[in-house]
Amino acid sequence: MSDNYQPRDSMRSPRFSQPATFMRLPYVPDLKNVDIALLGIAYDGGTSYRPGTRFGPREIREQSSLIRPYNRVMDRYPFNDFNIADCGDIDTAPNSIERTNELIEEGIRRVLEQAMPVVVGGDHSISLPILRAIGKKNGPVGRIHFDAHPDTWDEYFGGKYFHGTPFRRAVEEGWVDPSRMIQIGIRGPLYGADDLDFQREHGIRWITIDEVRERGVRAVADEMRSIAKGQMYVSFDIDCVDPAFAPGTGTPEVGGLDSYEALTFVRALKGVDVVGFDLVEVTPLYDGPGQVTSLLAANLVFEFLSSR
Amino acid sequence: MSDNYQPRDSMRSPRFSQPATFMRLPYVPDLKNVDIALLGIAYDGGTSYRPGTRFGPREIREQSSLIRPYNRVMDRYPFNDFNIADCGDIDTAPNSIERTNELIEEGIRRVLEQAMPVVVGGDHSISLPILRAIGKKNGPVGRIHFDAHPDTWDEYFGGKYFHGTPFRRAVEEGWVDPSRMIQIGIRGPLYGADDLDFQREHGIRWITIDEVRERGVRAVADEMRSIAKGQMYVSFDIDCVDPAFAPGTGTPEVGGLDSYEALTFVRALKGVDVVGFDLVEVTPLYDGPGQVTSLLAANLVFEFLSSR
Amino acid sequence: MSDNYQPRDSMRSPRFSQPATFMRLPYVPDLKNVDIALLGIAYDGGTSYRPGTRFGPREIREQSSLIRPYNRVMDRYPFNDFNIADCGDIDTAPNSIERTNELIEEGIRRVLEQAMPVVVGGDHSISLPILRAIGKKNGPVGRIHFDAHPDTWDEYFGGKYFHGTPFRRAVEEGWVDPSRMIQIGIRGPLYGADDLDFQREHGIRWITIDEVRERGVRAVADEMRSIAKGQMYVSFDIDCVDPAFAPGTGTPEVGGLDSYEALTFVRALKGVDVVGFDLVEVTPLYDGPGQVTSLLAANLVFEFLSSR
Amino acid sequence: MSDNYQPRDSMRSPRFSQPATFMRLPYVPDLKNVDIALLGIAYDGGTSYRPGTRFGPREIREQSSLIRPYNRVMDRYPFNDFNIADCGDIDTAPNSIERTNELIEEGIRRVLEQAMPVVVGGDHSISLPILRAIGKKNGPVGRIHFDAHPDTWDEYFGGKYFHGTPFRRAVEEGWVDPSRMIQIGIRGPLYGADDLDFQREHGIRWITIDEVRERGVRAVADEMRSIAKGQMYVSFDIDCVDPAFAPGTGTPEVGGLDSYEALTFVRALKGVDVVGFDLVEVTPLYDGPGQVTSLLAANLVFEFLSSR
Amino acid sequence: MSDNYQPRDSMRSPRFSQPATFMRLPYVPDLKNVDIALLGIAYDGGTSYRPGTRFGPREIREQSSLIRPYNRVMDRYPFNDFNIADCGDIDTAPNSIERTNELIEEGIRRVLEQAMPVVVGGDHSISLPILRAIGKKNGPVGRIHFDAHPDTWDEYFGGKYFHGTPFRRAVEEGWVDPSRMIQIGIRGPLYGADDLDFQREHGIRWITIDEVRERGVRAVADEMRSIAKGQMYVSFDIDCVDPAFAPGTGTPEVGGLDSYEALTFVRALKGVDVVGFDLVEVTPLYDGPGQVTSLLAANLVFEFLSSR
Amino acid sequence: MSDNYQPRDSMRSPRFSQPATFMRLPYVPDLKNVDIALLGIAYDGGTSYRPGTRFGPREIREQSSLIRPYNRVMDRYPFNDFNIADCGDIDTAPNSIERTNELIEEGIRRVLEQAMPVVVGGDHSISLPILRAIGKKNGPVGRIHFDAHPDTWDEYFGGKYFHGTPFRRAVEEGWVDPSRMIQIGIRGPLYGADDLDFQREHGIRWITIDEVRERGVRAVADEMRSIAKGQMYVSFDIDCVDPAFAPGTGTPEVGGLDSYEALTFVRALKGVDVVGFDLVEVTPLYDGPGQVTSLLAANLVFEFLSSR
Repeated sequence: MSDNYQPRDSMRSPRFSQPATFMRLPYVPDLKNVDIALLGIAYDGGTSYRPGTRFGPREIREQSSLIRPYNRVMDRYPFNDFNIADCGDIDTAPNSIERTNELIEEGIRRVLEQAMPVVVGGDHSISLPILRAIGKKNGPVGRIHFDAHPDTWDEYFGGKYFHGTPFRRAVEEGWVDPSRMIQIGIRGPLYGADDLDFQREHGIRWITIDEVRERGVRAVADEMRSIAKGQMYVSFDIDCVDPAFAPGTGTPEVGGLDSYEALTFVRALKGVDVVGFDLVEVTPLYDGPGQVTSLLAANLVFEFLSSR
Repeated sequence: MSDNYQPRDSMRSPRFSQPATFMRLPYVPDLKNVDIALLGIAYDGGTSYRPGTRFGPREIREQSSLIRPYNRVMDRYPFNDFNIADCGDIDTAPNSIERTNELIEEGIRRVLEQAMPVVVGGDHSISLPILRAIGKKNGPVGRIHFDAHPDTWDEYFGGKYFHGTPFRRAVEEGWVDPSRMIQIGIRGPLYGADDLDFQREHGIRWITIDEVRERGVRAVADEMRSIAKGQMYVSFDIDCVDPAFAPGTGTPEVGGLDSYEALTFVRALKGVDVVGFDLVEVTPLYDGPGQVTSLLAANLVFEFLSSR
Repeated sequence: MSDNYQPRDSMRSPRFSQPATFMRLPYVPDLKNVDIALLGIAYDGGTSYRPGTRFGPREIREQSSLIRPYNRVMDRYPFNDFNIADCGDIDTAPNSIERTNELIEEGIRRVLEQAMPVVVGGDHSISLPILRAIGKKNGPVGRIHFDAHPDTWDEYFGGKYFHGTPFRRAVEEGWVDPSRMIQIGIRGPLYGADDLDFQREHGIRWITIDEVRERGVRAVADEMRSIAKGQMYVSFDIDCVDPAFAPGTGTPEVGGLDSYEALTFVRALKGVDVVGFDLVEVTPLYDGPGQVTSLLAANLVFEFLSSR
Repeated sequence: MSDNYQPRDSMRSPRFSQPATFMRLPYVPDLKNVDIALLGIAYDGGTSYRPGTRFGPREIREQSSLIRPYNRVMDRYPFNDFNIADCGDIDTAPNSIERTNELIEEGIRRVLEQAMPVVVGGDHSISLPILRAIGKKNGPVGRIHFDAHPDTWDEYFGGKYFHGTPFRRAVEEGWVDPSRMIQIGIRGPLYGADDLDFQREHGIRWITIDEVRERGVRAVADEMRSIAKGQMYVSFDIDCVDPAFAPGTGTPEVGGLDSYEALTFVRALKGVDVVGFDLVEVTPLYDGPGQVTSLLAANLVFEFLSSR
Repeated sequence: MSDNYQPRDSMRSPRFSQPATFMRLPYVPDLKNVDIALLGIAYDGGTSYRPGTRFGPREIREQSSLIRPYNRVMDRYPFNDFNIADCGDIDTAPNSIERTNELIEEGIRRVLEQAMPVVVGGDHSISLPILRAIGKKNGPVGRIHFDAHPDTWDEYFGGKYFHGTPFRRAVEEGWVDPSRMIQIGIRGPLYGADDLDFQREHGIRWITIDEVRERGVRAVADEMRSIAKGQMYVSFDIDCVDPAFAPGTGTPEVGGLDSYEALTFVRALKGVDVVGFDLVEVTPLYDGPGQVTSLLAANLVFEFLSSR
Repeated sequence: MSDNYQPRDSMRSPRFSQPATFMRLPYVPDLKNVDIALLGIAYDGGTSYRPGTRFGPREIREQSSLIRPYNRVMDRYPFNDFNIADCGDIDTAPNSIERTNELIEEGIRRVLEQAMPVVVGGDHSISLPILRAIGKKNGPVGRIHFDAHPDTWDEYFGGKYFHGTPFRRAVEEGWVDPSRMIQIGIRGPLYGADDLDFQREHGIRWITIDEVRERGVRAVADEMRSIAKGQMYVSFDIDCVDPAFAPGTGTPEVGGLDSYEALTFVRALKGVDVVGFDLVEVTPLYDGPGQVTSLLAANLVFEFLSSR
């Protein structure tokens, strides 16, 4: 047995018992010995429609109680290979997106001194300060982005920050190298045909759900890996998945990926040099009692850990 | 920018704000300048199992708040191409299906003087009076029918009207030309092997989900278009979709279409001469908090508008 | 029959039909002829715990469908006595409480030119800009405040604005005369014994639920009226009611008023010179399928209208 | 142990086990040896707002699983004192209120040949055909009526029958003696001051919730008993109870009875000569997962049985 | 018309009416004339995570109300071909898994004297005593097992019995011939790479969801039938289906079968000599208001009946 | 500021942030410096009807996030007066009530070496092993018991242990002195008139809800205190509260205490020498989205802490 942090033994401590932490791992807010830090960022002030992602980290902790330590498909024991722990949440300021951005950036900066951040949101606006912290330390990174929406709009009610703008900002500010950026799962009505002009101008690759349907998941995953040169940041917006599989999200779009396809895409990250990961936009308030969205989110994080 | 009726600008008026109308369009009950009238018919008195489609129009209005004006797949701005508005509901008589039939027929008759009716139900019994109004004005029409059920039974508790009989009635009364009628998505247990005798006798084409699975959506959509000669009426019963994607319906049948397939079928209506459309059988009471059924319904209506 | 705006006739147009407006009244966003403007403010960016009051106005519109025009207890027909309409929502900026405060103040300023504002929130932070608009027009007003919480804290995460500070701000800025301010229903754990020092220093009267239980509702209502000299603003935070009767709220406190007591307090406003009213903190996401919180809210607004 | 029909022994057959019948009693659709017949009438076609009482009988069966055989307050074992069984539902015609009225009248007529009917609805329209059957057999009866609404309106969408008219009809047709009729719990907005003119003209006593609050439950119960001369029919509309205690109902009105008061009123029926009883307007679709409304309904029926 | 037990005629007795029995069949607890006994076992004491399968039989009865008598795909009328009835539940002891095992074994033993048991659970621990009863009567049987989990763990909290161990026990005790055992749908994180050693040692065939995705449902079904030599027991754990289609289960695993695939596998049992069938792990408490999991379960049972 | 363990500062760390612990206190599983240990026992294997109290501790942790540190009514800062922490759960064995009893007794024994146990259940069967541990250390204690049910039945399905028997066992085994035992809130149907014979024989005082209604809460609380001589154990079964205020419980009984009365009874424990406290029978699965039952439970625990 590894000396690493391990989940509680569910044959002695029932899964439904004890305060819920990510995957029943120890709670290590001081990051001691941690290689990969599971972090929550409970913020939904950048949300344009349905709120509640502020409760995402807690519910994903709860639903991650079912995770067992061995990944059969990847043949990996991630908790043996790395020291992984629940490092708590980076506290935010619910009444100010600007102040929240500062708190997140500072929180991630401290994590980066020692560990890779694997973050559970919160709404998608939290990706920008994470990228700022990474970019300031590592320089520009590439970016793999699973999402129904491009999230490269420019403004919202006169402000620069909400969950629809982070990746325009991240490119403008120089933290993301657009030539190594790919968006997968784009679909749904848009504001206009020019919504993807930013992508066109900056050479960002986007792949619609229609292209996924035509070419198949494997071909798209291969292209994804071919774009993933050098250090990459991965952002998984749960709304890339269809509302049947992930109803608990803020701006759902019908006609998306199914859960098996989502797992397949994350498994395909094996071999990619990832410096940070976030899974965002889970709002438990819009899920049913089975909380299948948080359950899927917990599994996607586990697959990501298994791909390291 | 078109002078047509436009949805509220969601970058200035939040999507969750203001009384909910279809796709955040103006409320124009007097039909002024309207080309395509979005109408609700809030009636569930023809329901044999789970009630609640009377709340379908309101919930679909609510969930249509996420619709944006540009359809990327179809490359269309339907609100620019046509004057489309929320023209309110045609009021019904909750305690009498016969009186409701009269009210609907009269309401549709008035709409037809100026605009194409795009109706949100309500249970499937509402299709009959719509077809009566159209038939009296235009003569017999063809009919494309997405549904898990044939809806051509003869009687119910001694009455001629409920949500399982409208299309037998419509053919008998001469409003629908059965040689140009196709039903897609049929599945689930039946009363007997003779349940489809009406189809056999009248030359109505029906396609089961099994046939869809074997031949594929595209081949079936091609056949659908080949049958669609002349003026057609399109009726989309949400229960043609699987309960995972559309739990909020009155007589759900497992093993149905997924949401992407449903969108694909509606997009395939492009080029068909449609004189009326209804989307029925959404009962919000059986949906989860994410109201994914109403969200799908709203998107299907938007796809239909984009196919004009 | 009065020529005033009237609710739809529910014997001809079913209650569940048509786009939902407050009490099934006409939608009059331009305020034409309106004496009392029913307004929504769909904002929850000042919320410290459970979000979702952004959907309060829409759900209260929905649940107000049951309201009939005659108030038997008060023997009044408010829709005959005044021209009352649904004047829509004052649009907010979901990503900025400061910008939202400006938008609300400007919106109320325009309403005040013609009508009394009766506002449905939204979280309690919206009361401050309403009071600013009223105060700038009318000078300082008195204030009747139903709430479980004093809402006179000073700061939150380094900011001056959230739903726990508006009445400290309103007194500091001079819009509320603290000698004519009364708070009813205070209960629940506090941060410290000094949480009510602001009240003590400014002579604000507060009445705990315990005092209500000891003295009775009538005695407390009498005292309320004795404090209500001159122009008064009334703010009803639904969390003054017990969670059994109003579970759909953001910071619920057990042991509160029951619904009959809440109605009684609002009826006791008869004779008070009220210049503005708000009902806040209803979040439908935490209510059950019966939406009893929004139903109670709708009735409280109707009782207030009947007390004019 | 009595030879009568008995509930299953919950110390041997778990409460959650076996097909759900009323109070876990045997299912005796042929009424053999039955003194008191527990019957469902699953009809909601007379409903003006929220549907779903068609599922009332099944859910009340389910929630009645908690009932134990001894009533401590009344010191009675009703299942020993009478032969009580679940006699199934009287089947209705969901698409016709007129045909349903006939089916109910005929069904009750057959029950009356042998047993007292204790009926669980369904919406309140079902009381009329029950009263017709009783009246044709016994002549006019008195009537005790717990309800938030008078239910003596005249018409609805041009029809004579819906859940707001049965008691005007019952008086007009001569089945109820208005001088021995009392309504308890009346509240909520009305259409007009003349809504109670029918009561005034016919000498029907009505007691508002405000009168209950002023005089107390005991005094009102005493008056109720004083009116109850001769054979009486008792109708308990669950909406006389506050929505906090009974959210699962079709036209809820805030500010009602609490559950203890409701129990007290039913217990006060002891000594009254009751010839039929109904409990109506429970719609499980609007209750929460605890189904407290159906649980209360089941207990009210048990209290009624214990009062015989 | 067959003289066999038949479902109520839903054109005369509404589907939502009468006490809910499986498929609206007669309740025949004494098994008189029964060929195939539909039985509930309402036990969840072997559950390691989410409870509530004790309410599975009742909810599946409820949702089976939609089943009609003719299976179009299989072209069969199962209720004509066999005498099928709702034979009630085998009562269990909620506080003891050992005593429950005895009660189940004895209950099944009595059923086997006359009829084939088709059992609705309940958690998966109930399969062991069913297999004991069958094995004692018939000798070892083969076994087809649809599940996300292998259920061959050894112990749990020091006990031999819970829902993760029954099939290790059944093989150890000699009731199941492992060479004729196949598991389909395996997926999700495991405890370790040795979790499937029992399968390897005993020659049990297991097929992961990944293998299903690669080879297709038909190829896997063919292999399943090739293993099904001699008498077989079939156990369908609903968690082999994806949580989007079956959220109401105790240990859900994302990335599973869809509902059409599940139906296809059960239809493929045609021609297999099945001596007993169970469908387990449906917990209605984690399903949404549409109860799609129970609906799917009811249909899977109907498909199984049609495959006989 | 006290050096004691303190809740997180909710003006810097949002209430919805971080893994949920009781009242946002530090998680101290090793009991270091702890005076009062907040403990969960997540066990529902003794439940006769609705399961799910295994999730009680987690949900009450979640809902206790709203608790602030100062109790205004009691004028106490409990976290300053005592060192109070979340000491985690005592792990149980979900598949064996006997083994669970041993695990609980051993867990409480260890706690008692240093701290007073304040336990959140779980079903009521957990009280017995707690009393065993206390009794073995301290000798017989008195007992204050809030409950709708007497919980002194003798057996259940042939076993001695389930949530209806613990207090017969505790008296029989000598851990509770029946002359100092009082039960408050008894109501609902019973099995027979002899259900309270055990109370009569042992001189246990029980007070029905009817007696509470007649004499008032204060008089009953006075009597309670008069019985509380010497060391007392307090057990609060949430079902003593009415289902409107506490729907999330396993065997709800209508007509109970309201939340203010429940708070009042717990406050009246001030001055009583309490050696252990439990709050049991909260099952979040039957609560609505507002989780008002868990919220009330959290507040009752806080009131108890404030009464020390």
